[in-house]
Amino acid sequence: MTTITGLELHDVRFPTSQTLAGSDAMNTAPDYSAAYVVVRTSEPGLAGHGFAFTIGRGNEVQLAAIKVLEPFLAGRDLDEVLGEPGGPSRLGELYRRMVSDSPLHWLGPSCGVMHMATGAVLNACWDLAARRAGQPLWLLLSSFTPAQIVDLVDFRYLSDALSPADALGILEAAEPGRASRVSSLLLEGYPAYSTAPGWLGYSDAQMAALCASAVAEGFTQVKLKVGASLDDDKRRLAIARQAVGDDVAIAIDANQVWDVPAAIGWVRALAPFRPAWIEEPTAPDDILGMATIRAAVAPVRVAAGEHVSNRVLFKQLLQAGGIDVMQIDACRVAGVNENIANLLLAARFGVPVCPHAGGVGLCEAVQHLAMFDYAAVSGAMDGRRIEWVDHLHEHFTDPAVVSAGRYRAPRAPGASAQMLPGSLAEYAYPSGPAWRG
Amino acid sequence: MTTITGLELHDVRFPTSQTLAGSDAMNTAPDYSAAYVVVRTSEPGLAGHGFAFTIGRGNEVQLAAIKVLEPFLAGRDLDEVLGEPGGPSRLGELYRRMVSDSPLHWLGPSCGVMHMATGAVLNACWDLAARRAGQPLWLLLSSFTPAQIVDLVDFRYLSDALSPADALGILEAAEPGRASRVSSLLLEGYPAYSTAPGWLGYSDAQMAALCASAVAEGFTQVKLKVGASLDDDKRRLAIARQAVGDDVAIAIDANQVWDVPAAIGWVRALAPFRPAWIEEPTAPDDILGMATIRAAVAPVRVAAGEHVSNRVLFKQLLQAGGIDVMQIDACRVAGVNENIANLLLAARFGVPVCPHAGGVGLCEAVQHLAMFDYAAVSGAMDGRRIEWVDHLHEHFTDPAVVSAGRYRAPRAPGASAQMLPGSLAEYAYPSGPAWRG
Repeated sequence: MTTITGLELHDVRFPTSQTLAGSDAMNTAPDYSAAYVVVRTSEPGLAGHGFAFTIGRGNEVQLAAIKVLEPFLAGRDLDEVLGEPGGPSRLGELYRRMVSDSPLHWLGPSCGVMHMATGAVLNACWDLAARRAGQPLWLLLSSFTPAQIVDLVDFRYLSDALSPADALGILEAAEPGRASRVSSLLLEGYPAYSTAPGWLGYSDAQMAALCASAVAEGFTQVKLKVGASLDDDKRRLAIARQAVGDDVAIAIDANQVWDVPAAIGWVRALAPFRPAWIEEPTAPDDILGMATIRAAVAPVRVAAGEHVSNRVLFKQLLQAGGIDVMQIDACRVAGVNENIANLLLAARFGVPVCPHAGGVGLCEAVQHLAMFDYAAVSGAMDGRRIEWVDHLHEHFTDPAVVSAGRYRAPRAPGASAQMLPGSLAEYAYPSGPAWRG
Repeated sequence: MTTITGLELHDVRFPTSQTLAGSDAMNTAPDYSAAYVVVRTSEPGLAGHGFAFTIGRGNEVQLAAIKVLEPFLAGRDLDEVLGEPGGPSRLGELYRRMVSDSPLHWLGPSCGVMHMATGAVLNACWDLAARRAGQPLWLLLSSFTPAQIVDLVDFRYLSDALSPADALGILEAAEPGRASRVSSLLLEGYPAYSTAPGWLGYSDAQMAALCASAVAEGFTQVKLKVGASLDDDKRRLAIARQAVGDDVAIAIDANQVWDVPAAIGWVRALAPFRPAWIEEPTAPDDILGMATIRAAVAPVRVAAGEHVSNRVLFKQLLQAGGIDVMQIDACRVAGVNENIANLLLAARFGVPVCPHAGGVGLCEAVQHLAMFDYAAVSGAMDGRRIEWVDHLHEHFTDPAVVSAGRYRAPRAPGASAQMLPGSLAEYAYPSGPAWRG
């Protein structure tokens, strides 16, 4: 019998604020960081890796929250937690037990540090399950029956928009084409777009050069940060348009800097530049505000999700007509399980999912969800792209790979979440070599 | 010059799960706890006290989040943080600096552990400011001019519902009667209602006896927990109605157990018992769901707020018509400052505020806000009551006092937030005598 022995925690921080890669109107100097967790087992070499992504200060709070979840796993039989090898997953049960623990729910509710901790631990369990199965996570998920997938979801608070029967219907409708979509993913991957050119801290020349590079590398969409100065935004958008030409889309991202009226005015002023979408025009939990903005700035599309705390808020963004594009994040919500609910909600409302990524490890983690969505949920790829930033991938044992503007399908067992031991040591905060002196 | 020397932290937990006081449909066995913080200064005897309230497990995560905020205060000149004695408060500035710190915002956004930590630290600073001024907090707040109060608020994301000019108008309209309302508070206090009878873990006989006691003590409203079993709820409501008579209101509280359709069915089934309101019929961040429920169960009123994470969600509950009664909590949001925004929003929409209390220290903390609201914001008391549970007050140096069904106005300097040193020691977790063995 294999048992889970406990959680091993690492405070990993990269001094990215030194380069201003990652700078936007809200987040001016982030140090990309991971509250990194390893689920250890009694079987040597069998472990699961997961993390919450933060931007530096407070990463230790995130780790403290992950630590609180250890009693849900430590000492338990591995098969009891994950389900029997080759059988249905039991991680839906673990997920529902963790999110309905009332003292921990009080620390949310279903948001912030405690919720992200749940996500980190669940994602590590999924990494473990996929390693045990010898499959990449997206393929493991795509091997489950519709009923098995439905069992991974917590439908509490969703039933006015998505019932288990609705979910089953969506998954069954997507079943016929699964095998061929899996093949196409293995052969051709999944479309990406590049945020590399658009950080606010970059000069016009640097931004233009990176836009041209992105097009040369095969990307069909780039993204620019906006919202600090309208004049700067107009100038930068004009330069970017010249650099990418007429056929490449340019999305813009305000990172929550505006109130509702300001968002409407600013986005209308940028509409002549034909942005592919405006991302996070205001507070992500301002459902009604997002809906007001979307109605006022059409045909410019509205995107959001990287800071949307849970499936109940996503449900409402869809019900209220607040978003044209749903941007799930692998680490903001309660892991793979809650993101399956988010994918099902998007499918139910016919809204495309373009996952948020970047940071550290977010590309690695979220690619599995987008590919699972294509294979088994929405069955669609049109208008969908995963965000891509070519940054910090060298710290992972199975880094995400983008070529010719597309994510290549991961083939190694697991969820691509494992960092190299050398990176964990080098960037350990505050004692690692990268932070000393 | 007095400086702030640092934060002193205490993990304080009361083993309340042993009695089932505090048990409801979601929270079956809470250990009422405080992540308690003392803002120490270089002046002996001058300190500020604050806390986040939790229900046990994870209280240490809450403390870790409070610790992260220490650099905002440690080593700073006291007058620079609080403002000059007798002058306008500068705590609006501290508040806005803390909530716009981007790495900490990432850990929310504006919700959960990190946001409650901000509230605990700000509330401790307000306790300190009131002690320095030699006034109870509600009186100190009520001594500020409308413009000074407006400066305490963060209007970001509110401007589509409440602008600084709107806020100023509300406060100026309430200015004429301030002095007489302060006098009436000092003389007659503020209405309370009692939740003591209604915990789910109590037997029918115990509940009926406590209902009768509450009426004998002068309460004009009691509250019952519901949502575990419809038959039980009907039986309990009938017993309670018999115990309190026709003239005492009975509110009911489901603590988020229902989905939207279930809430509507259940509340309609209980409507013949004429509940004063249904509290938390579903997830508190389900704005649209709350509005749907409210429309469907009228004339039964809908109340919520103890788990509403921030002013942006409150704004939407009001915009969408999701609540008839706003239940602010002293410790869920970013402290006194964000609650001033919540009070102003309620006044703007003409919705009464009936604060959430109970737990440990919540009665002590929130009474100041309700009294300030009456004195300087809404200027109204009709239909308003502060929740009251006669529980754990003995641990405070300046406990809340309710007599003849009314909170007596606090007169001691500060925010009534200080716990007795003996209680901090006895209930220290896990090393205190209460937890050993």
